[in-house]
Amino acid sequence: MKLYDLPPSPNARRVRIFVAEKGLEIPTIAVDMAKGENKAADYLAKNSLGKMPVLELDDGTCIAESGAICRYLEETHPEPALMGRTAVERAQVEMWNRRMELEILLPLIHVFGHTHEMWKGVHTQVAEWGELCRENSLNRLAWLDGEIAGRDYIVNDNYSVADITLQCALVLGKAVGVRVPEELDNVNAWFARVAARPTARA
Amino acid sequence: MKLYDLPPSPNARRVRIFVAEKGLEIPTIAVDMAKGENKAADYLAKNSLGKMPVLELDDGTCIAESGAICRYLEETHPEPALMGRTAVERAQVEMWNRRMELEILLPLIHVFGHTHEMWKGVHTQVAEWGELCRENSLNRLAWLDGEIAGRDYIVNDNYSVADITLQCALVLGKAVGVRVPEELDNVNAWFARVAARPTARA
Repeated sequence: MKLYDLPPSPNARRVRIFVAEKGLEIPTIAVDMAKGENKAADYLAKNSLGKMPVLELDDGTCIAESGAICRYLEETHPEPALMGRTAVERAQVEMWNRRMELEILLPLIHVFGHTHEMWKGVHTQVAEWGELCRENSLNRLAWLDGEIAGRDYIVNDNYSVADITLQCALVLGKAVGVRVPEELDNVNAWFARVAARPTARA
Repeated sequence: MKLYDLPPSPNARRVRIFVAEKGLEIPTIAVDMAKGENKAADYLAKNSLGKMPVLELDDGTCIAESGAICRYLEETHPEPALMGRTAVERAQVEMWNRRMELEILLPLIHVFGHTHEMWKGVHTQVAEWGELCRENSLNRLAWLDGEIAGRDYIVNDNYSVADITLQCALVLGKAVGVRVPEELDNVNAWFARVAARPTARA
């Protein structure tokens, strides 16, 4: 296997942390967007959307989308379980992972894409939308603070892919000036907990 | 089990079609947003985000997020398989389902939320963002037309949850004036194929 990677991308980081938590070592190949490598024909043959990450299997099969890559690794390397152990647990992990992705990570990606000067001229930016996403992501963090009261991780007391999604979202948040407000004690305690894991810098 | 439903919602429809394809009969309870039922305490206890659908199990456990509900039903009622039969197939279905959701359904939900008068005054609308999403969703449909050339369904020749996601996206598309352009022969042929299934009106 090999992993086509984009080091600063939150989606690529999700997969790298997942791989590290599984104790796997998968060689990574950084794709240089600045040089247009992701739009070159050989990369588009792996993922026609030109996005990273992509997991390439030994037979050449390519799996794009971080959620799909994590699912493949979970099935082929079940321990430690990062997506739950029973049908109900797996549904709960999936529910929380989706919430972390759709309610927090995706809005922060939009803050980045629509307000950061790095994207000026690369795609159409709608600053008003970026600012609305900033506000929405902060609202969801406040909601989350109540939800996780009394538990160590996003889903009960087991570290899971839902934690990975949120920790990667918050790393991006820092880069775009969305920080967890001080008064959100539960989210701040949670972040200190996950940031202390040896895999957090993967 | 019972399903808290929002009849016109594309996410709720995804679950209803999935349930119908499995041959299951799960009683549905329509939650009336106009009456604020989704923000009432008893519903918020089931899903604190006040969104539909929610699957309530017989022991009272509630599963929100359409993707999580479908996964639970796939695990507890494996036939017919709608998410692939091997680890690689399941990864491919997940990859395509994510693409259909993130690249087409979600943009169309934004077109609806940011340009339709139904949402005026309900939440902040950023019309420019809605219009950009309209353009992006059409670009992705053109991309998809090339991708599915020569196959019957989104993932190879098996109907899957990825088809369900796209067919629900396109029903919403019609409501917001995003129709599949005539020249996209493969997408149009695919849509005729899935729309002819007995479950399409679930």
